[in-house]
Amino acid sequence: MRIGIDAMGGDNAPREEVKGALSARRFLGEGDKIVLIGRQEAILPLLAEDPKWAEFIEVRHAQQVIGMDEAPVEALRTKPESSLAVMVQMHADGLIDACISAGNTGACVAAAQMRLRRLNGVHRPGIAVVTPTHRGPVAICDVGANVNCRPQHLYQYGIMASVYLQCICGVAHPRVGLLSIGQEDAKGNDLVKQTRALLKEDANLHFVGNIEGRDLFSGVCDVMVCDGFVGNVVLKLVEGMAEGLVRTLLGELGELLPGHENALRKAAGSISVKYDYNEYGGAPLLGVGGIFIICHGASSYRGIMNAVRVAVDFSKRHVNQQITQLLSGSPRVADV
Amino acid sequence: MRIGIDAMGGDNAPREEVKGALSARRFLGEGDKIVLIGRQEAILPLLAEDPKWAEFIEVRHAQQVIGMDEAPVEALRTKPESSLAVMVQMHADGLIDACISAGNTGACVAAAQMRLRRLNGVHRPGIAVVTPTHRGPVAICDVGANVNCRPQHLYQYGIMASVYLQCICGVAHPRVGLLSIGQEDAKGNDLVKQTRALLKEDANLHFVGNIEGRDLFSGVCDVMVCDGFVGNVVLKLVEGMAEGLVRTLLGELGELLPGHENALRKAAGSISVKYDYNEYGGAPLLGVGGIFIICHGASSYRGIMNAVRVAVDFSKRHVNQQITQLLSGSPRVADV
Repeated sequence: MRIGIDAMGGDNAPREEVKGALSARRFLGEGDKIVLIGRQEAILPLLAEDPKWAEFIEVRHAQQVIGMDEAPVEALRTKPESSLAVMVQMHADGLIDACISAGNTGACVAAAQMRLRRLNGVHRPGIAVVTPTHRGPVAICDVGANVNCRPQHLYQYGIMASVYLQCICGVAHPRVGLLSIGQEDAKGNDLVKQTRALLKEDANLHFVGNIEGRDLFSGVCDVMVCDGFVGNVVLKLVEGMAEGLVRTLLGELGELLPGHENALRKAAGSISVKYDYNEYGGAPLLGVGGIFIICHGASSYRGIMNAVRVAVDFSKRHVNQQITQLLSGSPRVADV
Repeated sequence: MRIGIDAMGGDNAPREEVKGALSARRFLGEGDKIVLIGRQEAILPLLAEDPKWAEFIEVRHAQQVIGMDEAPVEALRTKPESSLAVMVQMHADGLIDACISAGNTGACVAAAQMRLRRLNGVHRPGIAVVTPTHRGPVAICDVGANVNCRPQHLYQYGIMASVYLQCICGVAHPRVGLLSIGQEDAKGNDLVKQTRALLKEDANLHFVGNIEGRDLFSGVCDVMVCDGFVGNVVLKLVEGMAEGLVRTLLGELGELLPGHENALRKAAGSISVKYDYNEYGGAPLLGVGGIFIICHGASSYRGIMNAVRVAVDFSKRHVNQQITQLLSGSPRVADV
């Protein structure tokens, strides 16, 4: 297997990308390779840290870089020699089997849709983030690939995220919840009401009904289905709140328990790990004809390293084949 | 001033409603009265706790009760003698000057829209919740009155919530943020993009641009504008997460700091107060032709008591007059 990494993508590129690639050797099988794509003059000095890098890493030079705030489609059009565009084209050409990027998410989604196409039967790809909660991981899909969703898109997110959670996290029968504003059938906007009907009808899914915002933490579901706008808001809210709350609580405790700063720091660190996106190794773009793992822009080398693990598992466990199979048996909904 | 309280509304009705009314005396001026509306046989024994209750409380018997899970419009149609329907009709008839309910939110909104109408120039009423964050309160509007929003609705939520925050919380020039999935103009769904243009054009507003989920806690805005579906998800997520995180952190600390259970409990209590909706006294339904304060279903007597304070301030500071005045000067948008 050959895994491409966009070396120029993240906030801390290429340093964390290269370090992540070097640290990921443990996840590679015999003959597996990582291909770092980006400016070789920036990448090669960083690789020198590990004298054996050439045994499992190749470098493909790409001169251009797409910035975090660039308009995705425009950036891809004007920068065909960007690390991202080159990587995705390599995947389309069969030169690599998976893509990893911590760069501009919109550009990642656009590039994957243009060059990798969709899996047979998929209406729209969706990003599934496995988010840590104190009752275990919950996959939220979609978190930003698709901000103008239709019911059939959300329905397929339920199917695809279930397959992913089953294959990658070992959850036997993922319970699927539909994010709404009340548990009753009548609650929610039109999109939710129509999606609910589709999810309910599918006997292959373990659909548990509508869930509310608080249920992300209540342990009632393993997959939370929502449109990409809502999912993105939720994801960033959880991130911001975890930080803020831990800081507030430690402030209170610092006053109540002077002299215990070490224990407090340790507890904060342990919480931070539980809520750390780097642990989860990026989020797959489900539904594209290939493997694309999107990492948080601020990913450390651990985030990149774990994304390699996810890409390897994604391939080994045939996630895409299983999605295609399950979709072929699901009721067809016209995509109007 | 006469303030109506739906005594049968909340999860703990009528106990907390009656206790809240008794505790709210401190907020009443000379001649002000609270009118408790509901089953007198349930209310009167609870009032007996305070021998002087009759000096500032009246009881208006209403036989029927609307349950939390009833379909709002249907419930109002079939239960004209419900405490909620009677209360809103009393407000419409000028017998009371404000309504407070911890009952079925959908029914509260429907009843207010039907009987109190809208303020001049308002397209749709919206619920503004002042939510506690570690950087101070942020008003989120709308949190569930309107799940099929148009740009002109969101635009007006920005105006109305600004007036509210100014009048009630004393924030001089509230900074208004539009909840989206990225700060750039191009980010977001169609609703957000069109709303952004309207907010930007209005020189009377202190519009700070798009904000993201995490910014609820970053101190960049005082008002967060969003559609009622997203706002409701956000609100419940914050509630659920605060609970979950505090529990996780205390669990970690309990192991690291045995023997300090009291300090830990104290810190947790202090956090809980900061994030306690009861402190904020309910959320006004902004834009209706009257005063309607909606309380959390699980409100304690403190939530009801503080809602009385908010209703008094709302009236004293002429929030509705100021909204009408500001709207009359704002660009008109056809409500199609």
